[in-house]
Formats: sequence, structure tokens, C-alpha cells
Amino acid sequence: MRLYTYRERPDGDDRIGVGFGSDSLYALEDFGLTFADMNDLICNITPEQMGKLRKAPEGAKPIALDSLVRRAPIPYPMQDVICLGINYDAHHEEAGRFNQEAFGDRPKAIYFSKRVSEANCDGGKIPRYEGLVNSLDYEVELGVILGKDAFQVPAEHAQDYIFGYTIINDVSARDLQTGHKQWYFGKSLDGFTPMGPCIVTADEIAYPPVLGIRCSVNGEMRQNGSTGDFITTIAQVLAELTRGMTLKAGTIIATGTPAGVGMGMQPPCFLKSGDVVTCEIDGIGTLTNVVDDH
Amino acid sequence: MRLYTYRERPDGDDRIGVGFGSDSLYALEDFGLTFADMNDLICNITPEQMGKLRKAPEGAKPIALDSLVRRAPIPYPMQDVICLGINYDAHHEEAGRFNQEAFGDRPKAIYFSKRVSEANCDGGKIPRYEGLVNSLDYEVELGVILGKDAFQVPAEHAQDYIFGYTIINDVSARDLQTGHKQWYFGKSLDGFTPMGPCIVTADEIAYPPVLGIRCSVNGEMRQNGSTGDFITTIAQVLAELTRGMTLKAGTIIATGTPAGVGMGMQPPCFLKSGDVVTCEIDGIGTLTNVVDDH
Repeated sequence: MRLYTYRERPDGDDRIGVGFGSDSLYALEDFGLTFADMNDLICNITPEQMGKLRKAPEGAKPIALDSLVRRAPIPYPMQDVICLGINYDAHHEEAGRFNQEAFGDRPKAIYFSKRVSEANCDGGKIPRYEGLVNSLDYEVELGVILGKDAFQVPAEHAQDYIFGYTIINDVSARDLQTGHKQWYFGKSLDGFTPMGPCIVTADEIAYPPVLGIRCSVNGEMRQNGSTGDFITTIAQVLAELTRGMTLKAGTIIATGTPAGVGMGMQPPCFLKSGDVVTCEIDGIGTLTNVVDDH
Repeated sequence: MRLYTYRERPDGDDRIGVGFGSDSLYALEDFGLTFADMNDLICNITPEQMGKLRKAPEGAKPIALDSLVRRAPIPYPMQDVICLGINYDAHHEEAGRFNQEAFGDRPKAIYFSKRVSEANCDGGKIPRYEGLVNSLDYEVELGVILGKDAFQVPAEHAQDYIFGYTIINDVSARDLQTGHKQWYFGKSLDGFTPMGPCIVTADEIAYPPVLGIRCSVNGEMRQNGSTGDFITTIAQVLAELTRGMTLKAGTIIATGTPAGVGMGMQPPCFLKSGDVVTCEIDGIGTLTNVVDDH
């Protein structure tokens, strides 16, 4: 099923919804379940409760998505989002052409993190940070959400730890990312993590996920790849990181972006005010954001 | 005052204590106050309540620290710890000598993060991760804890946002740190963030802090510097990051380490089983950890 966080009005409380198509949802309460928020659901839902969510509740009325205030499915991630850098070959090539020193050498998987005090949502504005950022860029990525604590997980068991998938736009300020050597600051500005439109639970997507992944800017297709082309697979990431790190339930991993980002264009072409960025992954949906005026 | 998290027995609950010397504390409840944990206290304590904590509660009996189970003052940081890399000149020199490509160039402040699902404590063991890590190293650092949300804070107002200070040992696996290009993985292994022994509130330390900062291994002094020698000051860090990031109350910033780490020795000398690492900052105390057998 598809799990949403939404509000009934802009100043309302965050609520959880469960959808089966892509245009409506049922309130979680219609299934006789209550969780404080999506983190609580991910960490504490039982298999029996998950079973309950798999079919529409009898007698309840679905609510049209376009009547609701959209929110990121996990508005307040419990920890920084773990990101893979340079995880598709063609993106490695374009990034190295843009900045050989920063991106050319990739002997092993590159892990960094992105602080997300509040995730941006489908329809949310991406701030431009005029005067601070001169090279704003997009990166569509498959987000993997873990459903239980993972430590020393063999690659062949990685699937058991996946709660679901979402779309993440790993918005990046290239000047800050490369100018400060470590990428953290240029990735972690407020509003730089659009996520959504929902979480699709792991049972709905064949594992390992081989999904078309695309990003367009103002309707022009820029990125068009497949999540089957990861250099380091989800299983390898989980196996490698959990050799020494406990990845807690609720952990979000952004698995890297395919070729076609702004810094890869010749000449590079960065986002400007009013640009409409639409990220899309087959089987999950679309995540659209407009670059703000300031 | 000095704020501690402690337990009365190993399997007990985390409790908050308030100390005035360095050998005893009063239970928070003796002041007529209750907070769920240190994060809750930092985020929600009022100035009046802070005032209450400044003198020993009448009639209450102090508890000897050595009768208690030590815990990191913030056992479960709300977000990843934000770290400064290469923030002392002499450390820049030694790090560049060890690995020019990774550490030589430092045009601007280097920010990265350290995942801390659970902070290690004074007296805790530092895992060695045999087979995964071949170059385990220590880094004594002044930890700065923010007391309120900070966004677009001018450098001259940075002091107002500081709740207190602690000692952090930014334990690092140099092979993972440099081999994966971005430093995140090599900094984020379980047990790699000893923190403590307490938080000293900002009112007790003259601002900006100019404190002796030292680290010894098996009694041999290795690092011996002053927090007056930051390349990028606390005020500059807050001003720069908050141009685009909201740093939430409870944010922990590790401000970089002085010269004398293991990778800086000639030849480099890394930690091995049984090594006793003691970090010390004047006015805060000591933080001692033993490297585990495995």
C-alpha cells in the first residue's frame, strides 16, 4: 500500500493516510489503528497491523488527495538521511567532467549525510538562497526506508530490513558541496530534501527494485535511468554500513542519482527561480517542486 | 553548573543530575524539576528553572559520582553531531602530511557529520572493529550544545544560542574515512562518539572559550592545545551554517581537534586493544575510554 502524511488544513496536525490508487487515501483511523506519526508507525507496527492496512476498510470513504495539504511521508526524519554519492556510472562520468577533484575518484561507495530537520514535500518550494548558493541542482533518488534495526546484516538478508520506498530529490548547492570539501553543508540546507509523495511498502515492489527513475525541469527530461543500475546495490550498502553501524528502524537511505543533473550539462545549467522540477520513479509516483524566488 | 545523565544501576532508567564540584551530583528531582531526558531539558527549560539549578537544593543529599553508572550527558542526540574537520593549524599540517589528498587542501571550513545512535560515555569501551578498521584514531574536541533554534544568526549573537559545552572524542577509522572519500562512514561507527563527563552550562565558561584541551594515550600526552586556536570560530560556524540551515535546539557541534592524533605521528601510530585514551578540557573535566579487545 501507499502511506501518506497529510493535513486537512495548513495549520492542522499531521495525519497518516493509506492509499491504494494514486488519487485518494483512507485515514489511518478508518483501519482502527493509531500511531503518533510515520516514524512511530514504521518502528512499531506489527505484521498483523500491516495486514489490516492491505485492504480498504469497509464502510469508510476515501478522501481525494487533491483536497488535502501534502506533507513529506516522513516530515521529521529521526536521524540525518544517509546518502550515496556517485552511484550510477554515467553520473560518475558527468560529475567527474564537472569537477575531477571532487567527483572523479570513486574507489569505494561514497557515503555522506544530509541533515533534514523538516523534509520538504510534493508541491513545496525549493529555496534558492540567493547570495549564498550560485549553483542549485537537482538529483532524483530512490529512498529506502528501513523497518527494523539493522546491525551486521549479510547482503542476502538485506531485503528483510526494508520497510518501503519513496522518492527523494537530493537538492544540492554545488558551490558549497565542493567548496567546503565535505559535501554535508551543500546538501543540508533547509528545504533541500523534497520527499514523497508517499511511501510504497516493500511488498509492492519486486526486490531488488528495478524501476525507471526520471527527472524533468520545466517539462524537459533531464534524468532518465533505472534503479537497476546502482554501482553499489542496496544489499551491499546495508551489508557494508552495518558491519560497524546500527542503522535504526526509520533510517532513510538515498541511493544516488542517475546521469543528467545540471552540473553534468555542457555547459552546466543550474536551477533558477520559477523552475519546475519533477522527479518520478515508476511504481511510486511523482514529486514536483518549484524553485522559489529567493 | 554541570549536568549529568546517569543511572543508579546498569539496567536502570537514565536520570538527570546536577553537580557543582566534580565528584557528586544532586538528582534533578531534588530541585523540584522533571524533564524526560537531557534533550527535553535543553529544549524546554525556562530561565527561571535554570536559575533554580544554580544552587544546591536545601536539605538534599549529594550522591557520589563514583557510586553511579555513568552515561553520556546526551545519550541519544536528536540529530547527527555536526563536526568541523581540520580546524587547528598544526593539525592541518600533520593531517596533510599523512594524506595530502584527503586533508591537505582546506580553503573553507570543512563540515561533516557523525551519526550517533547512542553516544558512548566516560568509562565506555571503544570498539576496535577488527577486520573492518585498521587505523583507529582519537580526536579530543570541544563540543558545543545549542539551547535554542538558530537560523540566520549574526556572528555577534552566536553566544546567545549556546547552552553549554562538553568533551567529545571524535573517534575515527582513518582507512574508512579516507577510502570512502566522504568521511561519514569512518566517523559514524557504533561507539565512536564518547561524550562527557557532563555538560558545563555556558554561564560557567567565559566566551569565547579559551580552554586547554588535551588527550593522552596510556598516560603519554599526545594532544595539547587551546580552544582559542580554532581556525573557524564558534561564532563563524554558527553564522555560516545558519545562513541556510536551521540548527535546532539540542544540536551538538564538535569543533575540531588540535595536533597530536595518531595519524600525525611519525610514523603514524594507531590505537590498539587495551589502550587507555583520556580526553581533557580545562573547566569541563576528563573523558576516559579503553579500546576494546574486538
